[in-house]
Formats: sequence, C-alpha cells, structure tokens
Amino acid sequence: MGFWKSLFSTSDRLSAPVKIQQEGRGAIAAEPRIVFSVDRELDLYELEELCDAVGWSRRPLRKVRKALQHSFLVVSMWEERPARRRLIGFARATSDHAFNATIWDVVVHPQFQNKGLGKALMKYTIKKLKSEDISNITLFADPQVVEFYRRLGFLLDPEGIKGMFWYPD
Amino acid sequence: MGFWKSLFSTSDRLSAPVKIQQEGRGAIAAEPRIVFSVDRELDLYELEELCDAVGWSRRPLRKVRKALQHSFLVVSMWEERPARRRLIGFARATSDHAFNATIWDVVVHPQFQNKGLGKALMKYTIKKLKSEDISNITLFADPQVVEFYRRLGFLLDPEGIKGMFWYPD
Repeated sequence: MGFWKSLFSTSDRLSAPVKIQQEGRGAIAAEPRIVFSVDRELDLYELEELCDAVGWSRRPLRKVRKALQHSFLVVSMWEERPARRRLIGFARATSDHAFNATIWDVVVHPQFQNKGLGKALMKYTIKKLKSEDISNITLFADPQVVEFYRRLGFLLDPEGIKGMFWYPD
Repeated sequence: MGFWKSLFSTSDRLSAPVKIQQEGRGAIAAEPRIVFSVDRELDLYELEELCDAVGWSRRPLRKVRKALQHSFLVVSMWEERPARRRLIGFARATSDHAFNATIWDVVVHPQFQNKGLGKALMKYTIKKLKSEDISNITLFADPQVVEFYRRLGFLLDPEGIKGMFWYPD
C-alpha cells in the first residue's frame, strides 16, 4: 500500500483531546482516543463502509487501491479503544512532491461530525504536507464545505483563479 | 526523468498541420513541423527559457526536476526543423492514476501563440489522460484563460464546486 509510508513519521495522537461520545457502552468502557496516521494499512472494505456512511457513490475497489498507492499522502483517523480500532475519517492528496498538492476525499463518519474532528483531520493533513515543503495546497470544495475550508485558511479563487473540471464522455 | 515514459506511446505528430511562421529563414528553410511528446527527455534549462518567455517566476531547477519526476504526465510540444528542434510548449498533470488528474504549468511560447497550438496541446493532454482511464480532469485557471478552457469543454465550478488554495506561511 505504498510509498508514502516512507515519507512521514508514524501515527500521531491528537494533541488536543476531543471528547467522544461513549456509544452507550457504560461505565466500563475505557475513554476512546482519536489517533491520526499516514502509514497505517487500510482495509478497503472498512474505507468503503466509511464512504457509504456519508452517502458517496461506490467506486471499484481495484481503482480505489490504485488511487491510494499513487496518492502522495493518505491520512486516516481512528477511534481507538482497548478492544478495537475503528476508521472514522480519511483524506488523501495527490502531488508532484515539490510544488503542488491537491487534497481529495475528505470524509468524517457522521457519528463523529460536529466535534472538531474534520478540522483536526485537515490540520494534520496540512501539517504533513507543509513538512514535505509543498508550496501550494489546493482542493475542490463542495458548496456546503467552502466555509469550513475558508476557516482553515484556504482562499476561494485567489486572484480570480478558478477551479475547472473536464469529465470524459 | 520518469516513469510516465512507460505509460504512453512515443511522439505524435499533430494530425491537423498548423502553419508556423518561418522566422525569416527564407526559401531554403524546410517547413517546420509541430510534434507532441510524452516521453522526450527535457532539458531543464530549455524549459526554464520557455517559462521565462511567458514571464513566469523562476523556480529552483532541483524542485522542477522533482516535480517532473513525480508528475503523472509530462507533455512537450516541439517545433521541428531538419537542423534542430525547439521546445515551444509544455503541460503536465499530477494524478492518483485512477480517478483524478490535475493539469499544471500549461505554457506556449509567445511566438507560437494564437495559432491554435494551445488548443492542440490541451487536446493532446486530455487524449492521453483519457487513454489512462482517468475519471476526472481538473485544473486551476487564471482569469484570462477561463474562456480558453471552457471552449475546450472544461466546466467552471460545476455544481458549485470551488477551487481553493492554501499557501504555507
């Protein structure tokens, strides 16, 4: 699953702990932790389940695997309990390893939204890209998340530069 | 200079010949041809000269080399005469090799602009990306070239999707 493993350090714990809902496990459940990683092996079915949960169209796993292999950065976000870990967020970036990186497929599981975890995921992603000396981080934002990215410091159409798409027939 | 060499076939001649100014070489000059390639070795100084000609800021050659090595596709456009070839256009794309490709650094030498060569360069680039089964071709267009890309079939902010940029401090 790829060469980005060699580029970054191993998993990082979230520096500012985020309070997570206990999912009704009661008093015996240990406090779950949120962990970010750029080098954990991903189960493609677990990733598909995460993308299903936010209503994305299914994509062939063969192509998903290829896209992960050829992404510059693959970030995963996990809820960790003593007994199990669960994939709750994901983002990746393509890049020329020098000037430009483009972030794709940012997702946070609906049960974990509105807790600051999307922001934490993006900050972690930006930090990793900055550490690789990327000059310019770009993305294409759906209308409902433009404000979210703006608050993170992304500029909309700077100097009139416009995002454009071409879809094969 | 890179793995994209293995991905595509060798140089293609422009199917519809483009009339090129003869640069005052007189009657003995053979008709120059325009040739496109995805696998020709590029002289970084010649590429820098081309980018200088359109007024781009200089970039460290070390980073340019790295960016070319890690681009999915590097397209060059050449004017060929019997005695010499000259780099007159360039474009490249980053990609995850599966879903998304993003086109960067599209340039045509000023002496060769307004002859349909920018359009030919982009059509060639799109054809190559299509042949690799890329689902989605994107780019970030400066205001003065939005119309150019629109005429090529690129959509501006489709479904309200917005291009956003984050510049490291």
